[in-house]
Amino acid sequence: MSRFEARKGELLLDSEIVFHERVTFIGRIESRWSLNDCPKNLRQARERGAPARVHVAPQFRPALDGIAAGDALVLLYWMSHAPRNLLRQVPRHRSEGTGTFNLRSPVRPNPIGMGVVKVLEIDMESGIIGIDAIDAVDGTPLIDIKPHMPRADTVPE
Amino acid sequence: MSRFEARKGELLLDSEIVFHERVTFIGRIESRWSLNDCPKNLRQARERGAPARVHVAPQFRPALDGIAAGDALVLLYWMSHAPRNLLRQVPRHRSEGTGTFNLRSPVRPNPIGMGVVKVLEIDMESGIIGIDAIDAVDGTPLIDIKPHMPRADTVPE
Repeated sequence: MSRFEARKGELLLDSEIVFHERVTFIGRIESRWSLNDCPKNLRQARERGAPARVHVAPQFRPALDGIAAGDALVLLYWMSHAPRNLLRQVPRHRSEGTGTFNLRSPVRPNPIGMGVVKVLEIDMESGIIGIDAIDAVDGTPLIDIKPHMPRADTVPE
Repeated sequence: MSRFEARKGELLLDSEIVFHERVTFIGRIESRWSLNDCPKNLRQARERGAPARVHVAPQFRPALDGIAAGDALVLLYWMSHAPRNLLRQVPRHRSEGTGTFNLRSPVRPNPIGMGVVKVLEIDMESGIIGIDAIDAVDGTPLIDIKPHMPRADTVPE
């Protein structure tokens, strides 16, 4: 889906998107969510209390070495269902539109979602990581896993 | 650069990377860093005290609406210089190798860097955002800008 009808207050990109690089899917997210009931962010996902799992593809499993239960990870995932050509959006919880880069909406030029999650368990052989929560629909492709670094991943006051 | 010689303790992916989706560059990062002196993470970048700038391409500038000085943003950027086929790495600060997904190294299947930065100033018309620090070399392509959400972007204790 690359095109999308704008609603009042929204603004569409008026040119075709030019592509520069390619991503590989390193695995998939297994969750309880469909497009209809997916939480808008991880705080909501945690409040609704649904642990989830990450499935890492066989060829990438050695790259999980060193990750352990209790770790915090940054997951990056590809929200394939989202259109990419909306510059201003009117989210349901706002009365006025705002810029796409001022929102965490999946609708953005590169539909990459980001979640900081806690590892509940990990099995290197099957490539399965149990995590505390996720705000992504079942089957969402995963594109990166990083260790969360609390001191580097926050801005100083 | 898609191939790379492994050092002792390192492990190469033994198959070609299969690509699934495409990314667009929405702008570039302007920084003081070259490949030789780039800080390893944002904490180091802040300690070395070098503000930086983000340049957003003309067609995407309306998507900045609503972002203001003082905001914290998550930047995602594409570390084009990094090889993508290393599953285990031996960083200089460690004596033993560990999994790529247990490191923040730019060397990873999708070479995406993530930085949480503070907006010092923003000019919508020129698409220039002044930020407090960045751990990316000058000219690094930008692929996403998101608002940082402190309550959603940390794991509960």
